[in-house]
Amino acid sequence: MSAIEELVAELAKLPGIGRKTAQRLTFHLLKQGPETAERLALAIRRVRDQVAACGTCGNLSDEDPCAICRDPRRDTTMLCVVEEASDVGAIERAGGFRGRYHVLGGRLSPLEGVGPDALRVERLAARVVSGSGVREVIVATNPSLEGEVTATYLQQVLRPTGVRVTRIARGLPVGGDLEYADAVTIAQALTARREMSDAD
Amino acid sequence: MSAIEELVAELAKLPGIGRKTAQRLTFHLLKQGPETAERLALAIRRVRDQVAACGTCGNLSDEDPCAICRDPRRDTTMLCVVEEASDVGAIERAGGFRGRYHVLGGRLSPLEGVGPDALRVERLAARVVSGSGVREVIVATNPSLEGEVTATYLQQVLRPTGVRVTRIARGLPVGGDLEYADAVTIAQALTARREMSDAD
Repeated sequence: MSAIEELVAELAKLPGIGRKTAQRLTFHLLKQGPETAERLALAIRRVRDQVAACGTCGNLSDEDPCAICRDPRRDTTMLCVVEEASDVGAIERAGGFRGRYHVLGGRLSPLEGVGPDALRVERLAARVVSGSGVREVIVATNPSLEGEVTATYLQQVLRPTGVRVTRIARGLPVGGDLEYADAVTIAQALTARREMSDAD
Repeated sequence: MSAIEELVAELAKLPGIGRKTAQRLTFHLLKQGPETAERLALAIRRVRDQVAACGTCGNLSDEDPCAICRDPRRDTTMLCVVEEASDVGAIERAGGFRGRYHVLGGRLSPLEGVGPDALRVERLAARVVSGSGVREVIVATNPSLEGEVTATYLQQVLRPTGVRVTRIARGLPVGGDLEYADAVTIAQALTARREMSDAD
């Protein structure tokens, strides 16, 4: 396979990138000259080599603990639980939340064989034990069927701790994806969060 | 800038890739694991290091002469002139053309300060001299204003050689881009090519 065909094939593996787009990107890189291609290759390598899950919250970062966990100005009494690290960025861009995060690394999905053990649930419980100072856990899993099931499960796991467990409001379109929601919707959903009860 | 922000910024510089898509691609690479990212980085480096313009036709290739110029089964009596190396791929995928290519490296554009000296016009004339065996030059510059001006210019340059100069048919939508045309349209446009005259 020629160098051009190989790069087209690698780019076409990326989500949302078809073969024509991959060709266009390849020829764009060739037209831009070696510096652009080198910067992109270096950036990919740097992400691969330096980025890992934060040992505290599970957010992807090139530092451990991540910048949010290290920031002394963040409110340590509030934890926002999300499915993926990319959701942290979405909520941060929305602004309005000044607490910390906990990244589950997915959501419960019996169909895909994802049970509680595959998620960072145990570590979440450990962060919420009495004396930790955490007073509220905002469950911000996606407003999809699996996200709701995961939220209900977390509420049951955390009930013994006596901590307040809230769910972001269903201002987000049901079946949607938090990562692609607009900032205003995310901010409103955080503001309108409500208590989770067993009848939920 | 963090490693993630840097890769998002580099990806967002690519044509047609916005900030959200760049974020999605970055998190995709992080989820896929180090091998996928490494293959992509290597493919980019390989293109950067190995791909250059073919000394004969100007096509981008990791070999010189390129595979098309080296192929003894290609018809050496026909030259297809295109603006960019990416157009060669478009015509090859359309099938039906068995001659060789000449890549100009752009099109005449007084507004952007692109004159004949910036294009591989002199080398085209050198390839068409008597004794070269070339009997027909198909001008397949884009059916845009600048592509037509370039075609007319090439016809005047090549007139002294006595070679037959044809233009791909305007089956391609006017104002369009050859690179993104579908294979059937390109094949038809090649078949319906016609002589260029001074009144063109």
